[in-house]
Amino acid sequence: IESKLPNVGTTIFTVMSQLATEHNAVNLGQGFPDFNPDERLINLTTEAMKNGYNQYPPMAGIAPLRQAISKKIFDLYQHRYSTDTEITVTAGATEALMISIQALVKPGDEVIVIEPMYDLYVPAIELAGGRPVLVQMTVPKTPEESYRIDWNKVENALTEKTRLLILNTPHNPTGMTLNANDLNALENLLERYPFYVLSDEVYEHIVFENKPHLGMSSRPNLANRSVVVSSFGKTYHITGWKIGYCVAPLDLMKEIRKVHQFTVFTVTSPMQVALAKYADDKATFNGLASFYQEKRDYLEKGLASTKFVPYKSHSTFFLLANYKNLSSEPESTFAKKLTVENGVTVIPLSAFYMNPESKAANNHLVRFCFAKQRQTLDNALARLAVL
Amino acid sequence: IESKLPNVGTTIFTVMSQLATEHNAVNLGQGFPDFNPDERLINLTTEAMKNGYNQYPPMAGIAPLRQAISKKIFDLYQHRYSTDTEITVTAGATEALMISIQALVKPGDEVIVIEPMYDLYVPAIELAGGRPVLVQMTVPKTPEESYRIDWNKVENALTEKTRLLILNTPHNPTGMTLNANDLNALENLLERYPFYVLSDEVYEHIVFENKPHLGMSSRPNLANRSVVVSSFGKTYHITGWKIGYCVAPLDLMKEIRKVHQFTVFTVTSPMQVALAKYADDKATFNGLASFYQEKRDYLEKGLASTKFVPYKSHSTFFLLANYKNLSSEPESTFAKKLTVENGVTVIPLSAFYMNPESKAANNHLVRFCFAKQRQTLDNALARLAVL
Ligand SMILES: CSCCC(=O)C(=O)O
Ligand SMILES: CSCCC(=O)C(=O)O
Repeated sequence: IESKLPNVGTTIFTVMSQLATEHNAVNLGQGFPDFNPDERLINLTTEAMKNGYNQYPPMAGIAPLRQAISKKIFDLYQHRYSTDTEITVTAGATEALMISIQALVKPGDEVIVIEPMYDLYVPAIELAGGRPVLVQMTVPKTPEESYRIDWNKVENALTEKTRLLILNTPHNPTGMTLNANDLNALENLLERYPFYVLSDEVYEHIVFENKPHLGMSSRPNLANRSVVVSSFGKTYHITGWKIGYCVAPLDLMKEIRKVHQFTVFTVTSPMQVALAKYADDKATFNGLASFYQEKRDYLEKGLASTKFVPYKSHSTFFLLANYKNLSSEPESTFAKKLTVENGVTVIPLSAFYMNPESKAANNHLVRFCFAKQRQTLDNALARLAVL
Repeated sequence: IESKLPNVGTTIFTVMSQLATEHNAVNLGQGFPDFNPDERLINLTTEAMKNGYNQYPPMAGIAPLRQAISKKIFDLYQHRYSTDTEITVTAGATEALMISIQALVKPGDEVIVIEPMYDLYVPAIELAGGRPVLVQMTVPKTPEESYRIDWNKVENALTEKTRLLILNTPHNPTGMTLNANDLNALENLLERYPFYVLSDEVYEHIVFENKPHLGMSSRPNLANRSVVVSSFGKTYHITGWKIGYCVAPLDLMKEIRKVHQFTVFTVTSPMQVALAKYADDKATFNGLASFYQEKRDYLEKGLASTKFVPYKSHSTFFLLANYKNLSSEPESTFAKKLTVENGVTVIPLSAFYMNPESKAANNHLVRFCFAKQRQTLDNALARLAVL
């Protein structure tokens, strides 16, 4: 049969995790913690199952969980979303991104995506019949600097057909975060062009050096034109529970819910009940940035004493590192060899590019995930130290 | 903003459940059990969470669960699906249906759907840019007879553009099941036309009078051209856990997984681990048909002593009943009034039709769900007895 997504293979995260398992490698590839969530969250889920929360919850998510989300967003960003009509609980951020794109992108619409980028955006746009327009971030000249969005390039990419701009902040895989200048530039574009923003903010609670997260909800002019996506998986160490959410102004959310209703209808009931109780307390996520900053520092320092040159990560649980001192091979070749021959799994940066030129331009960068126990990081570092 | 699904409102099941809650009605509308699953299944889930199964499982589902599914299908239908490549665990049957349609239907393709039908099919087809072609089932002349598919009508609806035929057996809302003649007719069509079948078989274990379920997997010529969808929700009384699956020949499954990967990526990990252990034992579903047959008989008998005239249901946990002796109002008006004024919630049959003529043709039928405790059925019957 003729494929609707001829360019899609198995996602790099699955490919590398399978390779890691086969070769017994330390897996710093796919982004997931190798430790358990808070026991209290598990107990709350058990309690919910025993109390009978095992049947269809409401389509948009249970009201107490939507209330907890609304409260959290107001506390952090001073923006109020309607619990009834502007918040939807989804099967992870993945579903939130997919349904937003399916609901908002019509055949022929253009969608601007910023490279490097997560591998879902382009196939989701193509499935909707849209056309992805790729804009490359500015590559930093030194490991101390950050990747940045060039807003002139974004403006140049805007056409009459532009429907959506997809952003990701905090940014996977670079650890970039949008700053006030970025938000100004975006506000300026939104004043002059009629597109919407889909902002993937699943790492919102993992911004280092005590910086606040500047997401779309932090400014009314942005919030009113954006769908913001987040995830409990990254925040509470439950990537396998597949619970996320999106928030958007009523007119957009109305369309997104139509697709949600027929994509999964609703999301695992006992976990929603547990999270409604758990997420209501900001103590459950307030320490997350410093928890991960300590891990970032540990891995960065460890890598600095190998032949890798780590880049400064300002957010997320990823950092990039340069391997030029070790090899001049293409990133994907290097990453595979590192798993097979050296027992450490990472993700090649090239996997985050679709544009053939950028994909081929070898920056000798791979992504390390540091959402791991000290022991795991030590194991990986020991294997890299001998290179 | 311009809607991609202008005809879609909130699904009837949500609308009626909300109305039931507002009016404190006995909810025999939306199809879900009002009792808990086996305590063992809950305990297995708790155990899985405590044992650390809280991060991303493999994209297609964990291997032991796919093995249990493969084994069950072989035991029941003597068809062998490859655990590695032909089985995918999904976020309920809903996701399985949506991703199959997104993966297989291209813009301009025609998809034949049989009315009355579940409300997901048509919007999912429209989202893929396909054109739904509606074929009406033959309406029974007496409450003893069953709705039937008229295969001549199906053949007449086939064109060069027909990509897919969507079937649902056991059939919601009528309780019809396909019989050997139906399968013969379908085999015959598949020999002569190049379409595929998407078969929604979520009630496969709920067929009454000890009849075997004749699904697409029961004949190689059908299995080789079909995606078959099923659900643990309906089988194990866990509609809120949102775990289902689909099976299909390799070439189709390859495309379906591409969409799955970017729709939810994977499905709740601890529940998969629990179900892998639980579903491996056929004792967990073997008694289901007689369990529900007893409830069907109870409700049917109860309704027969009211002014409703129940139709014979041969499968599923639904039955239709005629209210002509009570009212000549349209089905949706009657259903709403029954909730608001009499405290019993049902689903109007018209909600299962899209074709304007069939939707308007008032058959005075509403659907009752009998996946309820005896006490719940008694409460409903007491309220209906006084009418
Ligand atoms: C859905 S698997 C990918 C997890 C992740 O977000 C990443 O590794 O970037
Ligand atoms: C997803 S809510 C609908 C449940 C159901 O299958 C039905 O009531 O027909």
